[in-house]
Amino acid sequence: MLTGGGDCPGLNAVIRAVCRRLWEGGHETVAVLNGWRGMVDTNLKPLGWDEISGILPKGGTIIGTSRTNPYKLDGGVDGVRKTFEQLDALVAIGGEDTLGVASKLHSEFGLPVVGVPKTIDNDLNGTDYTFGFDTAVYVATDGVDRCHSTAESHSRIIVVETMGRHAGWIALFAGIAGGADYILIPEQPVDYDAVAAAVERRRSRGKNFSVIVASEGCELPGVTDEGEVDDFGHVRVENRAVGETVAQEVEKRTKMQTRATVLGYIQRGGSPTPRDRILGLRFGLEAADLVESGSWGRMSALHGDEVDSVPLTEATAELKLVTQSWYDTAKTFFG
Amino acid sequence: MLTGGGDCPGLNAVIRAVCRRLWEGGHETVAVLNGWRGMVDTNLKPLGWDEISGILPKGGTIIGTSRTNPYKLDGGVDGVRKTFEQLDALVAIGGEDTLGVASKLHSEFGLPVVGVPKTIDNDLNGTDYTFGFDTAVYVATDGVDRCHSTAESHSRIIVVETMGRHAGWIALFAGIAGGADYILIPEQPVDYDAVAAAVERRRSRGKNFSVIVASEGCELPGVTDEGEVDDFGHVRVENRAVGETVAQEVEKRTKMQTRATVLGYIQRGGSPTPRDRILGLRFGLEAADLVESGSWGRMSALHGDEVDSVPLTEATAELKLVTQSWYDTAKTFFG
Amino acid sequence: MLTGGGDCPGLNAVIRAVCRRLWEGGHETVAVLNGWRGMVDTNLKPLGWDEISGILPKGGTIIGTSRTNPYKLDGGVDGVRKTFEQLDALVAIGGEDTLGVASKLHSEFGLPVVGVPKTIDNDLNGTDYTFGFDTAVYVATDGVDRCHSTAESHSRIIVVETMGRHAGWIALFAGIAGGADYILIPEQPVDYDAVAAAVERRRSRGKNFSVIVASEGCELPGVTDEGEVDDFGHVRVENRAVGETVAQEVEKRTKMQTRATVLGYIQRGGSPTPRDRILGLRFGLEAADLVESGSWGRMSALHGDEVDSVPLTEATAELKLVTQSWYDTAKTFFG
Amino acid sequence: MLTGGGDCPGLNAVIRAVCRRLWEGGHETVAVLNGWRGMVDTNLKPLGWDEISGILPKGGTIIGTSRTNPYKLDGGVDGVRKTFEQLDALVAIGGEDTLGVASKLHSEFGLPVVGVPKTIDNDLNGTDYTFGFDTAVYVATDGVDRCHSTAESHSRIIVVETMGRHAGWIALFAGIAGGADYILIPEQPVDYDAVAAAVERRRSRGKNFSVIVASEGCELPGVTDEGEVDDFGHVRVENRAVGETVAQEVEKRTKMQTRATVLGYIQRGGSPTPRDRILGLRFGLEAADLVESGSWGRMSALHGDEVDSVPLTEATAELKLVTQSWYDTAKTFFG
Repeated sequence: MLTGGGDCPGLNAVIRAVCRRLWEGGHETVAVLNGWRGMVDTNLKPLGWDEISGILPKGGTIIGTSRTNPYKLDGGVDGVRKTFEQLDALVAIGGEDTLGVASKLHSEFGLPVVGVPKTIDNDLNGTDYTFGFDTAVYVATDGVDRCHSTAESHSRIIVVETMGRHAGWIALFAGIAGGADYILIPEQPVDYDAVAAAVERRRSRGKNFSVIVASEGCELPGVTDEGEVDDFGHVRVENRAVGETVAQEVEKRTKMQTRATVLGYIQRGGSPTPRDRILGLRFGLEAADLVESGSWGRMSALHGDEVDSVPLTEATAELKLVTQSWYDTAKTFFG
Repeated sequence: MLTGGGDCPGLNAVIRAVCRRLWEGGHETVAVLNGWRGMVDTNLKPLGWDEISGILPKGGTIIGTSRTNPYKLDGGVDGVRKTFEQLDALVAIGGEDTLGVASKLHSEFGLPVVGVPKTIDNDLNGTDYTFGFDTAVYVATDGVDRCHSTAESHSRIIVVETMGRHAGWIALFAGIAGGADYILIPEQPVDYDAVAAAVERRRSRGKNFSVIVASEGCELPGVTDEGEVDDFGHVRVENRAVGETVAQEVEKRTKMQTRATVLGYIQRGGSPTPRDRILGLRFGLEAADLVESGSWGRMSALHGDEVDSVPLTEATAELKLVTQSWYDTAKTFFG
Repeated sequence: MLTGGGDCPGLNAVIRAVCRRLWEGGHETVAVLNGWRGMVDTNLKPLGWDEISGILPKGGTIIGTSRTNPYKLDGGVDGVRKTFEQLDALVAIGGEDTLGVASKLHSEFGLPVVGVPKTIDNDLNGTDYTFGFDTAVYVATDGVDRCHSTAESHSRIIVVETMGRHAGWIALFAGIAGGADYILIPEQPVDYDAVAAAVERRRSRGKNFSVIVASEGCELPGVTDEGEVDDFGHVRVENRAVGETVAQEVEKRTKMQTRATVLGYIQRGGSPTPRDRILGLRFGLEAADLVESGSWGRMSALHGDEVDSVPLTEATAELKLVTQSWYDTAKTFFG
Repeated sequence: MLTGGGDCPGLNAVIRAVCRRLWEGGHETVAVLNGWRGMVDTNLKPLGWDEISGILPKGGTIIGTSRTNPYKLDGGVDGVRKTFEQLDALVAIGGEDTLGVASKLHSEFGLPVVGVPKTIDNDLNGTDYTFGFDTAVYVATDGVDRCHSTAESHSRIIVVETMGRHAGWIALFAGIAGGADYILIPEQPVDYDAVAAAVERRRSRGKNFSVIVASEGCELPGVTDEGEVDDFGHVRVENRAVGETVAQEVEKRTKMQTRATVLGYIQRGGSPTPRDRILGLRFGLEAADLVESGSWGRMSALHGDEVDSVPLTEATAELKLVTQSWYDTAKTFFG
């Protein structure tokens, strides 16, 4: 098995479950180190009892990850196919990119691949929820809670910027749970006047402070997305700008002191919540069962309270965005 | 609205949501203090912005609770009916007992009652999950995590007793998430030899420690339930006995030092997790919508990821027990 | 009493203790709202049992705070002196600025003032520690812990920027406790080559990841402090730049992917740790005792494990910086 | 080095610091597994970079512990002396028993031993604080906080029983920090009438709930300590009885529903707080320095904010009990 893409609490739960279930069937398990990079380079390591002992509460992934895409490397796919000769099956645990590669390898070459969806952003299609999301929401809500006391003491507005580049699930859930007075997400137009109006409604009730939650992926009026990739090849500046820009625009309209804080990486690291551990374990068991039954090209998925499977193509077909109905729930509590 | 029965994180989220949604419709909201006791005695208090400000992250209930059952009090039902004359509708937030009273008042007298299901044990029928459960699992899992380090350092077995009198959901979830080596729940016969065998399997792999999670409601072989109600009218001794008895029986079989710890009240108090806050809010909004539409005799419920409603009678018809399928998931990781 | 300056976990503990102790002596207590602003405007509110009930675990301050300095307002000092006519004594709870005003009011006009030192940065002279610092370290260490799992999974360097404008205590303590591989603080010259060398030492031992902790107040080579006050009159950009700049310089030298994250406001809000609650309570009791004994111009202070008092002038004489001995302790664990 | 006695958060911090500092001096470090048991049986294991990697935030001890006392084993001391032939020095990390053995081995045979004091109870003489205590207080305070919301919602009294067999430090600190309405500790006579009076004072102010914190080591009137060692050779029943007995006696006097909860093992396991990690690291560095300088028969100690050393005999001479002054601080907030 391999883990690809960004860090996500619950990865070790998946790894543990795949091993335990496959061992029951008499199989051996092997880690492919550092995501697709390890498939290209045939970097393998057997996984036994010692390796998976005590990993359940740990964040990160014990088998490493990378953002390598074999389709973008010279000879990448050949390397992957060569490594497959040593494996009976591959469990690819990852997000849109990782699962996209898995899906292609299966459809193009018929390789024995199954997938496990992974994203803290919860924006993968084909599954109601992904592990890692609950932990991100937990950390982000704690951040919102902490900012409430500061905002109240200072009679100030604080804008809390959460992760969520394409979908606003983290901002939405942390905002609802943290009692945010407005929530800005990529799925909804950013309307500074509406934010200011919510702040004013509170002020008219004697509440001289507010907390706004904004997803890093919000589309800001008048701000284009271009030019934001820095020297090191990753988007950096834009992330920061959202909270800060919102703070300035809200301050301009309300004349109240407004500050921004960016929660950043703490949302994606550290010990997973119980719920994420359980979901990771269930996804891992399902993936092992898919291997046992030879159901290649499928991935684990949660529907309601049941874990089953869907085709890998479904996960990568489109993003799962925040619905209007969920946003309306949040709006009940704005201002 | 009223809150009845035991404390449960998320109650204040429900209260806040009912108020906010009903105010949107131009209604006023009134708290009935201390559960059905306040309906019997007409102990009412208007709820406005000040009352519900800042309550979302707080444990407990700002309107008090009690275990009063008007049907067991002389003149209780008459008192309740009299109080109803001052109310247009009642949102009863509570567990099996509270909702049972609500259901009866509706069916017998046609009173305008809607319900919100509440139990940390997650054993109420008609809804997939209840708020408070996620927090209980969170606290219990933290307890299991902490006991792991002590068990390992001491080469010892620790039995962690969780809440869950009739259903083993808390033990099951905290046990799976905490990596327990065996989980004992009321729905499954307690087999000490199987527990000892799991411990031995671990020992044969060089793991000289184990953590067992046991629900307080386990039926212990040879232990009858009678005679355990103490002078103060509540069952006390039996709760304690489960963890302790299991520890003694396991120690007897494995000859390994075994200790029990009872997590107790910390599982039902304190700030709710984000998930419980959100579920509480959604249940509150649904209850308010039931009031708006005059859908008396129904309660909020979660099905998959959707909140809708079911008849109150459904909640109290039978307990929702841990399924064999869930227990099989847990068993994969025993020993 | 009044609370001035930035938010700080433990303020409510001080307020509660001052009230309880003074009530024992038969006195009444009055809150001056929003710091010195309330003294200028005579904005007072009696504090009784209801006001201080349940505030101990709460972050922030129930009596509001501001950064108002009466010496910088026209008629400010006159307003303060006028308000004093209604008070027998004033307990000023705050940082360097707040205590500086208190000290001046006492020395210039002989006003009956005592102080309680407050800063999450722990840089106030005259006391070994201040409340709020332990909570800030707790939150920052949790942040460092979380970044460790991400850094390890990604084989990456993460720079965690903490609060601490003039002194590096938070970075130092969170860095030591979080197992940082290098710590940058204002008291020590920033040597990027030394940071890179520590990263390389780890790499030579097979550790392809590192976590660097940097205080927001670090003096960066080649970066001047000017020009960083924004339109709203407070320094904003500079804060951000430290982590980001360090990340770029380290990436340049090590050729390893390096990312920065800024912990921000979450360090100063939210429920205080037990230690901060206890220190706040003890400082409050001492301040009340100073009032009882008419020891004007003094403030509560911690020396070793004892709480006593020192002249207010001592607190504001100079900053308490990280000693070389403490930094040497940290250096043992670099790389 | 070895770790003896009960589990204690911060042990791994000590181990890490001893290794890092001694390696600086060109020394090699060896773990003696499972406390004095490993010295008797010569159970040694070299400690290198891999062994101590990532252990700082982990609870427990990576080198195991036991309650073995070589002086109580036939040939125990001979075994220990034989093992010493393979070692240049021994760092014994433990509580009263472990340090007592270390002290005796040094004084009787001149063996090259230094000590590190360890107890979550904070009752070791010769040092102001020990690591593990802050974590225990943190967990216990969280327990008290959680019980507050339940007590308030139910208009009930909850008795929280903490660890602390001989000294009441954990109960005292968690009680003060948790806002307990009464605190019972071994150092003070248990006066149920005083507890009831505190409850009544609150009731007269409209507070129909209270939280009492009681140390497991309280001497209960009319209860003797004898006969409490169970079949398995350890005192079990007595621990439980304290909270329960106090609850019954308080209920009898106040006629208010009163419940007990025992926090148990969760106080001694799990990830150490930042403060405990730092103290553990400092104690480890000091111990390594004692080894370097050949200062045998001494142990690390905290005095005020400084870490230095004292003779091992000092630690075991008497217990460090809660002072009257500390208890008076707590009493200010009773009822």
